Amino acid sequence: MDLKLLEKEFFELVNIGIALTSEHEIDKLLEKIVTEARKFTSSDAGSLYIKEVESLRFMVAQNDTMDKRLGAGSGKTSFRPFSLPLNKKSLAGYVAVTGKTLKIDDVYLIPPDSEYLFNRDFDIRNNYRTKSMLILPLLDADEEILGVLQLINSINAEGEVIPFDDYYVKFVQCLASQASVAIKNAHLAIELKKAHLNTLMHLSVAGEYKDNETGRHLKRIFSISGIIAANLNIQTDAVDLIKYSSLMHDIGKISIPDAILLKPGKLTPEERKIMEQHTIKGAEILNDPTSPILTAAQIVALNHHEKFDGTGYPNKLKGKDIPLSGRIVALADVFDALISKRCYKAAYPIDEVLKIIKEENNKHFDPEIENSFFKSLEHIIDAYEKNKD
Amino acid sequence: MDLKLLEKEFFELVNIGIALTSEHEIDKLLEKIVTEARKFTSSDAGSLYIKEVESLRFMVAQNDTMDKRLGAGSGKTSFRPFSLPLNKKSLAGYVAVTGKTLKIDDVYLIPPDSEYLFNRDFDIRNNYRTKSMLILPLLDADEEILGVLQLINSINAEGEVIPFDDYYVKFVQCLASQASVAIKNAHLAIELKKAHLNTLMHLSVAGEYKDNETGRHLKRIFSISGIIAANLNIQTDAVDLIKYSSLMHDIGKISIPDAILLKPGKLTPEERKIMEQHTIKGAEILNDPTSPILTAAQIVALNHHEKFDGTGYPNKLKGKDIPLSGRIVALADVFDALISKRCYKAAYPIDEVLKIIKEENNKHFDPEIENSFFKSLEHIIDAYEKNKD
Repeated sequence: MDLKLLEKEFFELVNIGIALTSEHEIDKLLEKIVTEARKFTSSDAGSLYIKEVESLRFMVAQNDTMDKRLGAGSGKTSFRPFSLPLNKKSLAGYVAVTGKTLKIDDVYLIPPDSEYLFNRDFDIRNNYRTKSMLILPLLDADEEILGVLQLINSINAEGEVIPFDDYYVKFVQCLASQASVAIKNAHLAIELKKAHLNTLMHLSVAGEYKDNETGRHLKRIFSISGIIAANLNIQTDAVDLIKYSSLMHDIGKISIPDAILLKPGKLTPEERKIMEQHTIKGAEILNDPTSPILTAAQIVALNHHEKFDGTGYPNKLKGKDIPLSGRIVALADVFDALISKRCYKAAYPIDEVLKIIKEENNKHFDPEIENSFFKSLEHIIDAYEKNKD
Repeated sequence: MDLKLLEKEFFELVNIGIALTSEHEIDKLLEKIVTEARKFTSSDAGSLYIKEVESLRFMVAQNDTMDKRLGAGSGKTSFRPFSLPLNKKSLAGYVAVTGKTLKIDDVYLIPPDSEYLFNRDFDIRNNYRTKSMLILPLLDADEEILGVLQLINSINAEGEVIPFDDYYVKFVQCLASQASVAIKNAHLAIELKKAHLNTLMHLSVAGEYKDNETGRHLKRIFSISGIIAANLNIQTDAVDLIKYSSLMHDIGKISIPDAILLKPGKLTPEERKIMEQHTIKGAEILNDPTSPILTAAQIVALNHHEKFDGTGYPNKLKGKDIPLSGRIVALADVFDALISKRCYKAAYPIDEVLKIIKEENNKHFDPEIENSFFKSLEHIIDAYEKNKD
């Protein structure tokens, strides 16, 4: 191999590392790992498994030949998701258990008394011929197995399947190490976000403890707000913020005296005025300009009782002056209140609920939000059923 | 350059990328970036700046010559922390503003009419001779400047200072890109953790809203628990968990009826029994086996009123049967209650507070925890003063 080519390959490898570790969305990252590894080795196909407790979960499959056969633009080759047991019998299992790299020139020539065997199911089902393979463990810095990367059918300039070049193995092992760091980092970020969400959920539930809330109401508001928001052509991050914020919409109730919060009968006008303060108190509690999530939550807490026609509280805002998240959570909250049984009222039948919501179109609710609500009605009712009290 | 050497350099570069992106602690990471870049280029010295809003903050300095002069084991060369203005006048500033790499064979030969100038202060103060320099921008994937890496005095096999090799510039630029990804990832993780902590803090304060809490009590408990824990020879992560957990020690008060929680006078024995339930209710609220932080917080909520001699509540646990975090927060909480003014009592003078705490040694409090408390008493009083009501 000449110096210039070697240099090119190496800089490519370094840049792949940079690209992989810059990608934080796990699904995109795993696809990118397979894409880059295939490009680097001119492989016709590739796949990736992630190690779970006692199995290997199949996560990514790419196959140029199949894609061409199914026609351009058909997108990804469709594979059924499956898991492999974590033992030496399969090729990927062998690599995951031993941590060794396998380089096989023709998998059909693996002797039947070998420790590992090639499973021809995919080939038979799809009339494909798997021949050369390079199978690498994805190891983190502590040599823990995170998964397995499989590269299939190295293709030469003439388009023929050839064995993987020995020289490349070291390169691809480097690539696998870079991929492992990226996967580990992405997982860590997911864990951190999950922990954060979990905390929000628990403490929001705590805020409604005296209402005897089980947290199901909040889980429903969370899902329903998310479904409505997702229909609105806004960014995923914005949808997430609205979902998380919705959890804290009633946190201000913490400040309402028990005598009013827990009063069984109807509230007097004065009591109602105090009760309505939960929007303002909530905004006070959540006031933190340095935190995007708390700022978003503050907006929801303050505005989820505003009405589209300007008759809501606390600020009698009108129309699009009400922040989007407030308009979304307003509908989610009322829907959930109507459809659920509460200590002071029976559950309304779904037809009745939808009738009321339609009547409130352009009055209590923003027509755009109603539109988005009805667009995914089935999905919303599912979300309700899943967390029914 | 021959093929074998080139190959070695390249694999080194890839491995540096892996090592950097695996390091999540920002301080260690920044040191590692300078160390690896210096090793790679045989530089006598190196430093790193991080870009802040309108300045460059000096973060890392390494200098072999100075270290040798000051004697082995003296640790790092001591530099005064400082910030550079973000303009083209300094070398680092020029690189940060323009995004260009500077390679200078002798900084003393920079013409006086040059856009950028070398500042000889360090050299004069330390009798050092800075000669060759390689100064690189740390750019993220969007070409945003994160900081500047400075390599100083490339050393040849004979120990002489020589210009940086042109050939290496591309390599070191790659290294800088890898470093940038690692810095960006570390910053993201810090942001996520901060957001989480912020949320915990706010919602914990919300939990004490009816007590008219400003959050200062919680901030004090947070700091004081942290100081006590840090003296105990446990891991940093464990100290952090105890600090965060301490925030939620009283979250169960959310469930206590206003009539008891806010009663001005003394509680009757029955009321006291209900009040004591805040430990158990808190543990209920925080129950989430999937979350390490909530599990840790649950332990604190349940156990912060246990006493070392077994006379506490709710489980009358004794001695080391009380979880460590519970023993720590118990002392922090009582200290803070005694030293602070509350609506129903004046603040005790510090001598009185310490006398009471000493009297409770081996009774209310674990002697080991008291020991740790008194070891950092000054620091603890500082923490109290900083967040005094």
